Order: sequence, then C-alpha cells, then structure tokens
Amino acid sequence: MKLRFYNAKILTMQNKEIIEGELHTDNGKISHIGGEKSGEFDREIDLQGNLILPGFKNAHTHTAMTFLRSFADDLPLNDWLYEQVFPHEARLTEEAVYVFTQLGNMEYLTSGITSSFDMYMKLPVYVKACTDMGFRTVLCGSINDFGGTVEGIEEEYNTYNSGNPLISYQLGFHAEYTTKREILEGMAALSQKYKAPMYTHNSETKAEVAGCKERYGITPTQLFDKLGMLEYGGGGFHCVWFDERDMEIFRDRNLWMVTNPASNLKLASGVAPICEMRRKGMKNFAIGTDGAASNNCLDMFKEMFLVAGLQKVCEEDAAACPAFDVLEMATKGGALAMGLIDCDVLAEGKCADFAVIDLKQPNMQPLHNIAKNLVYAGSKINVKMTVIDGKILYEDGKFTTVDADEVYERANKLTKEICGD
Amino acid sequence: MKLRFYNAKILTMQNKEIIEGELHTDNGKISHIGGEKSGEFDREIDLQGNLILPGFKNAHTHTAMTFLRSFADDLPLNDWLYEQVFPHEARLTEEAVYVFTQLGNMEYLTSGITSSFDMYMKLPVYVKACTDMGFRTVLCGSINDFGGTVEGIEEEYNTYNSGNPLISYQLGFHAEYTTKREILEGMAALSQKYKAPMYTHNSETKAEVAGCKERYGITPTQLFDKLGMLEYGGGGFHCVWFDERDMEIFRDRNLWMVTNPASNLKLASGVAPICEMRRKGMKNFAIGTDGAASNNCLDMFKEMFLVAGLQKVCEEDAAACPAFDVLEMATKGGALAMGLIDCDVLAEGKCADFAVIDLKQPNMQPLHNIAKNLVYAGSKINVKMTVIDGKILYEDGKFTTVDADEVYERANKLTKEICGD
Repeated sequence: MKLRFYNAKILTMQNKEIIEGELHTDNGKISHIGGEKSGEFDREIDLQGNLILPGFKNAHTHTAMTFLRSFADDLPLNDWLYEQVFPHEARLTEEAVYVFTQLGNMEYLTSGITSSFDMYMKLPVYVKACTDMGFRTVLCGSINDFGGTVEGIEEEYNTYNSGNPLISYQLGFHAEYTTKREILEGMAALSQKYKAPMYTHNSETKAEVAGCKERYGITPTQLFDKLGMLEYGGGGFHCVWFDERDMEIFRDRNLWMVTNPASNLKLASGVAPICEMRRKGMKNFAIGTDGAASNNCLDMFKEMFLVAGLQKVCEEDAAACPAFDVLEMATKGGALAMGLIDCDVLAEGKCADFAVIDLKQPNMQPLHNIAKNLVYAGSKINVKMTVIDGKILYEDGKFTTVDADEVYERANKLTKEICGD
Repeated sequence: MKLRFYNAKILTMQNKEIIEGELHTDNGKISHIGGEKSGEFDREIDLQGNLILPGFKNAHTHTAMTFLRSFADDLPLNDWLYEQVFPHEARLTEEAVYVFTQLGNMEYLTSGITSSFDMYMKLPVYVKACTDMGFRTVLCGSINDFGGTVEGIEEEYNTYNSGNPLISYQLGFHAEYTTKREILEGMAALSQKYKAPMYTHNSETKAEVAGCKERYGITPTQLFDKLGMLEYGGGGFHCVWFDERDMEIFRDRNLWMVTNPASNLKLASGVAPICEMRRKGMKNFAIGTDGAASNNCLDMFKEMFLVAGLQKVCEEDAAACPAFDVLEMATKGGALAMGLIDCDVLAEGKCADFAVIDLKQPNMQPLHNIAKNLVYAGSKINVKMTVIDGKILYEDGKFTTVDADEVYERANKLTKEICGD
C-alpha cells in the first residue's frame, strides 16, 4: 500500500520546524518527506494545509479497563483497586477482553494515539484484538502475587517479540506493593538474562512508598535498583512520590518516567514533580493515560495540557514545562520509552505511524504557534486521521477496521453481565 | 421555527434523572419534554438515542482574546497582562473585535456552550458579532483606570438590557488592582441605584490580594463588601485566594464563585479551594474558560475535568467534588450566575438552549453513568449539535450562521496586522 499526503504541514518532531510539503508511505514505512515528488500511489490525499505529526504514544495504560469507565469512581486508589477493580476483572471473559480492548483502541485512534504500552491480562486475545484492527501495541509484563509466574513472563517475552510488526513485549511486573520479593528477584534475573529493560508502577501514591519503606527500609526505586532490576534500563509508571535518590537513580540509569496526570488527579494520588526531576538531571519523560477506570478518558490532548498546567501551578511559574517539551514527551518520548525506536519521529524509513490534525477548527486558530495550540488547546475534535503501519485506521470520524456500532453494543452487553448494572 | 428532537435521552438538570423521549421547540422556547406527541414541525430530528442536555454556560470569559491564543504564553499574570495583552489589545480595530469574537463563539459552539458571560470592549461591535450569528451573551462591565466611566457603564446597562433576547448586561469592573477607589465607589452607587448585582475579577493571584491589603488593609472581597457593592448579589471571577471571611461574605450574600481552573493553572495563579468554600457554606458555583489568551482553549469539558480533578488531588480525597455537582456548575450554575434565569435547566417554557451529545463515541462507552462520562471523559468530539434560542447553530461539525473558512482567513490576516507575526 502506497499513500501520498500532499498540501501538508509536517511537524516531524526531529526539531521545531514545520515543513510544507508532502509525505509518502510505502508498505508501512515513510518513503518520502519533503517537496513534491512523483510516483504511483494507491491513494493521494490533499490535506489542504492540515498538519501531520507523529502519532501520540500512550506510554502507560490498561486498555481493556474501558469496561469500568464511570463505574467505580470517586474512591481512593487502594479501595478502588481491591474492592472494585480486581473483583470485576476476575469476571472478565476472553470475549470481553477482546471487545473492551478494541473499544479502548478506538478511543486512542480518535485522539491520534498510534500505540499503547499496555499492562493487562489474557494476552493472546488482547493481541488478537489489536492485530485484527491494525493497532500497534507494546505489551508490558504484569506479574504479581495474584497472577503470573516468572517462567510465564519469560515465555511471553519470547512469544511476543517474534516478528509481528504490530506487537512487541517488555518485561514488567505490577508494582512492589502487589509483588513479593521472590518474584521481584526472579524478574531481576530475567532482566539480567535478556539484558532487557524493566517496567512497573512506581511510587504512584504516598502510601505505596511508605509501605515499601516499612517492608524494605527503602523506596521502591531504590529497592528495584538494589535487586538489579534496572541495569538495562526501563522505567516507572506514575512516579509521583520520588525522593532525591530515586531521581538520581532514574537519571543515572537513563530510565523513563511515564507520567499519568489525569489518573493521578482523579485518584487523588498527587502531582509528579517533573520540573524538579529535570533539575535533578532526569531527561527521559513520556506520558500515559492509564486505564479508563481511573482516568476516565483516553485522550493525549487532555494529558498534555495537564502535564504543562500542573507543573506551572505547582512551580508557581507560568514559564515552567513549555509546550514543545510536552509534545516531545507525548510523541518521541513515548516511543523511545516503550522501545519503539522506529516510531519516534517522522523521517524516511521510519514507521508510518502518524496523525493528521485538522487546523481548520476554531481551537487551532489563529496559527501563531502550532505546537502551543496542540498542547494548550488541542482536542479529539482536531484528529482528522490516524495512520498506523501505513494504514488509515480512522478518518473523518469513521473507523476503517472495526464496526463501531457493533463494538458499542457488545461492550454494553458484556459490561452488564460483568458489572450487573 | 418549530423543531422536534425524538429518540432522545434528556438530562434536564432539574434532577439526576435521564428521560427517554422527545423535546420540542417553538419560537426559541422549549414547548414539550416527555413522551411522543404529535404536532407540525419545520424539522424533525431522530437523535438515535443521543443525549440532550442544557447548553454549558461559560460564566467568565473575554471572547475576542482568541487573537492572542498561543501568542503570549508561559508568562506570569502581571507580565502577561501589562506587557503582552494590554499593548496588543490597544491595536484592536472594530473589525478585529468582530472577527475574533465570532471565532471565539464558534469554539464555544463546538464545546456545547450556549452562552458566555463576557467582559470585553467595543461592545456595539461585539454585540453585532454575537447577534449576527445568533449567540447568546451576557455582557459584563469592564471599567478600570485605563478605560470607561461610571456614566458609560450606566448607559451600557440601560442600552443592553432593553429587550434583545440574545443580549443582556451586568454591572462589573475589571478588578481592584486595576481600578481606583473613586471608580469603585461610583460603581457601588450604581449597584445601589439599580439594585443590581456586581461582578469582577476577584483574588485571582496571591499578589493581587497582597496588593489590596497593602492599599486598603483588607482583601478585595472585604473591600467590595465594605464599599456596598455586593448588597444585590453578583459574583467574583477566579476567587483563588480567599480567606475565611471572604468565604463568609460570599455565603451570606449568595454571591457566585466562578472558577477558571485551566487559566489558573496556565498562568500559575493557583487552585481555588472549592471544597473548603463548600464546607464554609458557599453554595453558588459556576465555571468559566477565561479568554483564549490565558487558557488557551474554550472548552467546558476540559474545565469540568479540572474542577473535579484538582479538588480531588488538593483535598487528597478521590471522592471530593463528584461529577454531577460539576455538571450542575457548568450548566444551571452558570446560567444563574449570569442572570439567565430561563436558561438554567430544560423544562417547558424555558429557553431552547441546549447541546446534543453524541454518545456513540468510544469515550462515552459503555453507558454506566452518563454524567460521569461527560465530566470525566467528555470532549468536543461529543458535541453533535448546539442549539441557541431554538436555532441549530452547529451541527455535525458545520456552523450554520457563519462561514468558518472566511472567519479563519480574516482572523489570521488581522492577527498578523496586530501582532506582527
């Protein structure tokens, strides 16, 4: 499949420059960015001055949790997790995971998100839900005391890193507070064996850090480091309650801090000190939506505004955390955080994963500064098209690879069976 | 003009109940809400199960400031106001105010906002911009040391409260820190003369309150109260830095607290203590976007999430500020705050000002709880239709009373002339 997008503005995210020209795709890759160039195409699309930018990367989520959206709200994290989430998740069938994953992926497409870093269960059916609709996903191991074995994680690691261009896998476990030391040590050995990075929920709540200190005398980050889990990189999801030493470890090991501001507000977990982390020398940041049960929205525009706005207000400095830095976190940062090294920026040979932004909407006008417009004023309404692996999966409000009405109908039916409302 | 909307879900905001049925309009008013009912209509619209709810009320804004969107960002309020906003505003022509107002109103329509409480200048042309496109606006006096006279405000009060169904006017001044005592006293006399409520920016920044205390020994709220400005009600915009006495005055005088969370984050002004205000007995809350120069987005969905999310995280309580309360602030609260007593809820005889929400979008599924979906997950993408005074001004992405491309073109041209970029 060869596509030509012309009359475009292109923000490659290699730098701040906006190119006026065209972008071609060939078999899932970008084959040309620049001026007019002839060729044979399956389809040529006049973008009429609209913007192409790398797809947003949702660097932490639990996609299938769409079924709990607006169900178990307004509870603190621990009650929410143990009293609402786990009991209902236990009732999830394979069909349910398939449908709820597709529903979540559809929402990503409406927000210009082209891949997710996804920690969930029933991976075979989850993978099928993604590949059937053409969505690119990086699976994250989710072992904890309630499910999974280190051997199982190793098998997943090998199974899902075996060539499917849409699917890859990173080592991970749920969190310190849900995972006993024996498993943590097993995971550390796995990381060493494969020289592979390691990912987990880290310091999401004040209570989580306090609990870890009680159990081990040190913070989660310091524990993971001590156990040898972080020698080959990786990252932490949330990272709200970091101390200075945690920041130094993340800096020295080049770990990725994946922030989830909407979820952290809604569960009253706190605000991650991103500016302070940058002052301490941390450089690797990415953004995630978390699952729809906690957020409740899978929308990178919302997250980007929150990253910037919360840092400004917490720093008491309106200049803190400027827009372009946030746009980098949401695109390039996310891709590199989850190991998608060919999805970071737009360039020839890179994956054709991008969004077309409708600039002809009131919230994108006037065109003083497109990056600022995107971060401070962008909305799902601006996503005209979402392209993954060179295929248009979403265009002008329509999904090309799923029957939306059927997904909604099945999702509501299955939700009633599981949640009983 | 008589319209029939059938196969609808209707959230009247009189209570939490969702009615399944239809809504009719007749000459700008709602003529029926309930079951099937026959009649003659100019148009009958099958909503296919989508939701009607009262239009959002943008209870504090400066609409024409769209021209400074993404222009003067990342500055603290005082530098932003004196170095960027005022000098560029001084160059605004009548044509520019007309075009930038229409651009802002268009954005409101994309967000289901059906009226604005708008503090700006060049009111005749502003009024024309609104009435030409059918947008309902409540003008707010904006006198300060740099412009306006008390006599001029009185004239505006009489001129714009004279029967145009789309236009009304409330007494107001810019803020204590921009307005000398003599003017404040003149405005107090005006409020007394007309037994009219009074509105102003109030305690937006810590510095504003400190300055007022230096000048008068008391906070802005206590000063306004002492000067007799608040005897007939009214309200304050922002209200971030209130002390206990300020809250008691707002409670005792039934004043409206209009919160602007996105603007307060972006200008690093702070987070308004809404939960604490409620504990102190304040009951009247509404929500505004503020102008696009500070926000930079005119989107009630964004504001609603922020109102809830910021209270939860600041209170360290995920149960704080539940969704339905926020939805009330954004609809009924806003209408009553700005004196639009017939635009508060949906009922027979009330103004036909409402939004149609597309529930057949991934972010509105499954349908556990529609109010929570709206507040925690809603987006401009969900606004299928915006109706004001019984006329459909926005439908499926199209504006029915303005030529969008022409507005964008003129807005960019005028912006270049004024801002020189």
